[in-house]
Amino acid sequence: MQALIFDLDGTLIDTVYAHVFAWQRALAEAGMAIDGWRIHRRIGMSGGLFTRAAARELGRDISGAEAEALQRRHGELFTELLPERRPLPGAVGLLSFLRSVGISHGIATSGRRPEINSSLEALGVPEDAVVIERGDVSRAKPEPDLFLACHQRLGVQASECYVVGDAVWDLLAARRAGMLSIGLLSGGYGEDELSRAGAFRVYRDPAELHQSLDELGLLS
Amino acid sequence: MQALIFDLDGTLIDTVYAHVFAWQRALAEAGMAIDGWRIHRRIGMSGGLFTRAAARELGRDISGAEAEALQRRHGELFTELLPERRPLPGAVGLLSFLRSVGISHGIATSGRRPEINSSLEALGVPEDAVVIERGDVSRAKPEPDLFLACHQRLGVQASECYVVGDAVWDLLAARRAGMLSIGLLSGGYGEDELSRAGAFRVYRDPAELHQSLDELGLLS
Repeated sequence: MQALIFDLDGTLIDTVYAHVFAWQRALAEAGMAIDGWRIHRRIGMSGGLFTRAAARELGRDISGAEAEALQRRHGELFTELLPERRPLPGAVGLLSFLRSVGISHGIATSGRRPEINSSLEALGVPEDAVVIERGDVSRAKPEPDLFLACHQRLGVQASECYVVGDAVWDLLAARRAGMLSIGLLSGGYGEDELSRAGAFRVYRDPAELHQSLDELGLLS
Repeated sequence: MQALIFDLDGTLIDTVYAHVFAWQRALAEAGMAIDGWRIHRRIGMSGGLFTRAAARELGRDISGAEAEALQRRHGELFTELLPERRPLPGAVGLLSFLRSVGISHGIATSGRRPEINSSLEALGVPEDAVVIERGDVSRAKPEPDLFLACHQRLGVQASECYVVGDAVWDLLAARRAGMLSIGLLSGGYGEDELSRAGAFRVYRDPAELHQSLDELGLLS
């Protein structure tokens, strides 16, 4: 195995609960109140897919313009609720270790620039790091495009990459990309949900992943 | 089986994610930043136990006064974040059905009056309903005291009561109280986590529980 491809929110940065709550408020404001747990289980999908799925659940059809307005409002509320980004335990140390020993890695996120910039900054991700964001591909998770674009940029075969993610959507997209995946509990899914979605291994957070690199065949 | 004893937050009312986020902010303000998923998995414990557990996880010891200040700040933020309470799907209908057919039931919550009053109001819980709250017992979940007080007030034997809850703490407290339990996914735990904590059955939300009363032996 040659490389790690990381999801961002809930995997490296502690943002899932702020995202859930921002969506809950944005949807309620638009008269589309949805249970928090149903929103939680869809976090990590592309925002467009998410809003259409939410509308369908309420038996409504929303226009592209409405979906965009909802995503914009979610972004505003999210920044208001969580002005500072907090790396998950071990995230900064793991990324810096991978750089120091030269293990290929990249970030592939359904999030968009400029919204993700402060997360990348909090993680100390350098300018020249491989970061694939929503705008770089036409379809986000659970489609495999983000991960496929990432392994191509890294120049590593898909079968030699692990995807690291906290959401079922990461793990499903990894399987479609022909990659093994590592589930992290730090996004609030249960271990069993991640295993059933195909995770090769499940760890608590980036700190436990760091301690487990040996068992993944990434250290020579 | 004779009676249903309901937890409140995450079981009848959609408040879990607002609670998680309010705790996350209150703890961060006090210099005790903790991962959202770790907070989520402790929601439903008594606030006192929760704050002590959070402090211990950070290797800190907090005084009773500090713990109380944190709980107060959490309450403020919670009300600010979620001025309106939204019943979970089917909750209002289920409670009204139980009243109409005369099936004994009560609410037993780690929450306190007056904070829980607006949730009870949103659910249409009448004045004379059996509601046991934090202030009625000396120890909250995962201790069984709330459920024991509730079955005594209902005048039904413990072995003839189901506890209905969304958190592992409800299900563990139910076992200690000698009661069967029903897990609901509406608090954001995974099905497997609830089953492993001893749930007799797991349903999505109060609406699915309502449709399943036959299989629980509650309808004659």
